[in-house]
Amino acid sequence: MDTESNLNRDIPVLDWSPYLSERAQGMTSSVIRELLKLTQEPDIISFAGGLPAPELFPLREIEEACRYIIRKEGTKALQYSATEGHPPLKDYLATAMHKYGVPAVPGNILLTNGSQQALDLIGKLFINPGDFVLTGRPTYLGAIQAWRAYQARFHTVNLDDDGMVVSEIEHAYKKAVADSGRPPRFIYVLPNFHNPAGTTLPLERRHRLAEVAAALDLPVIEDDPYGELRYEGEDIPPICTTIPERTIYLGTFSKTMAPGLRLGWIVCPEVLMERFLQAKQGSDLHTGTLVQYVASDICERGLLKPHVRQLRKVYKERRDTMLDALAEFWPAGSSWTHPQGGLFLWARVPESIDTNEFFKLALAQRVAYVPGISFYPNRDGGHNAMRLNFSFSSPDLIVQGIQRLGTALKNALTE
Amino acid sequence: MDTESNLNRDIPVLDWSPYLSERAQGMTSSVIRELLKLTQEPDIISFAGGLPAPELFPLREIEEACRYIIRKEGTKALQYSATEGHPPLKDYLATAMHKYGVPAVPGNILLTNGSQQALDLIGKLFINPGDFVLTGRPTYLGAIQAWRAYQARFHTVNLDDDGMVVSEIEHAYKKAVADSGRPPRFIYVLPNFHNPAGTTLPLERRHRLAEVAAALDLPVIEDDPYGELRYEGEDIPPICTTIPERTIYLGTFSKTMAPGLRLGWIVCPEVLMERFLQAKQGSDLHTGTLVQYVASDICERGLLKPHVRQLRKVYKERRDTMLDALAEFWPAGSSWTHPQGGLFLWARVPESIDTNEFFKLALAQRVAYVPGISFYPNRDGGHNAMRLNFSFSSPDLIVQGIQRLGTALKNALTE
Repeated sequence: MDTESNLNRDIPVLDWSPYLSERAQGMTSSVIRELLKLTQEPDIISFAGGLPAPELFPLREIEEACRYIIRKEGTKALQYSATEGHPPLKDYLATAMHKYGVPAVPGNILLTNGSQQALDLIGKLFINPGDFVLTGRPTYLGAIQAWRAYQARFHTVNLDDDGMVVSEIEHAYKKAVADSGRPPRFIYVLPNFHNPAGTTLPLERRHRLAEVAAALDLPVIEDDPYGELRYEGEDIPPICTTIPERTIYLGTFSKTMAPGLRLGWIVCPEVLMERFLQAKQGSDLHTGTLVQYVASDICERGLLKPHVRQLRKVYKERRDTMLDALAEFWPAGSSWTHPQGGLFLWARVPESIDTNEFFKLALAQRVAYVPGISFYPNRDGGHNAMRLNFSFSSPDLIVQGIQRLGTALKNALTE
Repeated sequence: MDTESNLNRDIPVLDWSPYLSERAQGMTSSVIRELLKLTQEPDIISFAGGLPAPELFPLREIEEACRYIIRKEGTKALQYSATEGHPPLKDYLATAMHKYGVPAVPGNILLTNGSQQALDLIGKLFINPGDFVLTGRPTYLGAIQAWRAYQARFHTVNLDDDGMVVSEIEHAYKKAVADSGRPPRFIYVLPNFHNPAGTTLPLERRHRLAEVAAALDLPVIEDDPYGELRYEGEDIPPICTTIPERTIYLGTFSKTMAPGLRLGWIVCPEVLMERFLQAKQGSDLHTGTLVQYVASDICERGLLKPHVRQLRKVYKERRDTMLDALAEFWPAGSSWTHPQGGLFLWARVPESIDTNEFFKLALAQRVAYVPGISFYPNRDGGHNAMRLNFSFSSPDLIVQGIQRLGTALKNALTE
């Protein structure tokens, strides 16, 4: 008997749209999720995802930590646990972040399911339907998606090679006030190795941004998933060091340890912690206990730092390989950012090429990227730009992929 | 140098309340979370939590699965993964649920961070501010908390010893329409071994509920965290077998494997899957990859079923111990439900005792429970009731704890 078909045969189809919330009616699928499906085939060279290099995952360390933790304190590591997060992990994070000046103490850190959940909790706590949020132009796609689910609207501030053009914030603020009759809820900033732009905000712009935020009485969301992955230059103090009282800082283990653990964190002003705990508890009670114990064990044994050093070495080489290949193979009129760290660079092709249209031609050459328009909340830019990831593919494949893209671009230009 | 105090000294305190969403202003802390803090001390006999017995966690199986998975496919098990969930795990779940008649196929299952996240995603997709939700009276606290965060209001339907009094649903529906001018969004039901009531909805009431839901054009949320933990009687088909097109069914590994993995799932009509994926992706991209691989490995190796058989045996003994102790030690005028499964029973004490007030006296005797009022969304009942968990404590401690409560109750009655 085919149980499955018997069970599912003749189920009437109900139209659920009348039951959906207004919130849900505005949700859309991530373009990237759809794109990534196209790029799963094994012969595709994908610069599209934001994937860390899986061959560098600290497998042995994670395996050992699993064994040790389950044997030593399995009954705790597999039980329900505190909404706040695992105390020893918070202790480690507080100390580790002091290196960058982040004013973290165990009491103002909340562990989340990757930093995507941090973005969601921020939406839940701060966004009313129709409210404006200020972001860069382009900005991180996951933030757009998280906040659209709370019916946010967006006003944007341009980016140049040094990241967000801070002098435009006040103008964007005024537009939000004019359009909604109230101030925007916060400004969202990715100061280090911006996703997708690959830019880094210099110290003086961070100071200026802090001044503007304070002057406009605007909270700041400082998203820093790549801060540890710097390949050149000096660390620059995060914005939260200047205006800790109005900054919510986000970190993650997804790029330094492994994304499949789903471990990120929030550092917030202590007056906000109770609110985040309420939101987090309603969302999923707490972050996975086992993965927190495992991450904590790896950190406590001092295994994360040497691993991150190794990541920096390999990713720097891949970035350099991509930069060299772009210079060698791409047509005149193209340009790209020179990221000091992170996983991405932002490339512009000659104006006559629409990267959304060109995507099919690239895929025919078995290469994938993300079209620039995806990163513009109002879809008003990035038509001749694309995000290229350099962490996932080997140097050989990077050269091949960039060369194939270059050839396809040249062909498109001469048609 | 004391870095921490230097970093955090003199941070001005900002009042964030003007920045909060209307949603956030209505959030409150879980009473249980606050209570559980009081009951962490080691000499407390706690019937308050909903914790599975940690000494029964399948530690060896989980440890072996971690080792096997990380060695065999660590690069996949630690990478970003599909929002839908790990395909082999969905295959297993679909087949496993067919035993109960749940019309699950891999394409209508979504893995979540425990079933609390399922409740959150449901709130996100279906609840507008001020909308009514219909629940039992009492009902699961986590659902109240999840949906209050989306500004839900509640109308409730009484429970008797057979669970939800289905004949009252239409009345509650009409009250919601009268109070909000629109239909309630859905009805939330826990048919098996209700938390907190310990009741089980008989087959004819399930059929009647399905008829009422169809007649009122009302979606049904069927929450079934304890269905596998039946200690007597026959399995009863879930409501989703009768009205699959309008039921969202929720399951979890928290009670059968381990809560610290944070693994639950949704089975929904296939037309809804895209909406759930959008909501889930904005919330946290996907559920932890490693824990899904580990759970899948344990299931595929056939280790879950014998483990659940062991749980049933131990928990049945604990339930019986608690029922016997209640009969022996509690004062006349008390009564309690006789759960056929699950983790909880619901006890009523003589009317003159308020279980919220009595909590302090119980704690002085080093015993904890959850006061009944916590489970009433409108705080309009449960004054002389309490939820007692029987899965966490050993039989010896169950007898001691119930005896101490009985003595304290008798003292309170004679004062």
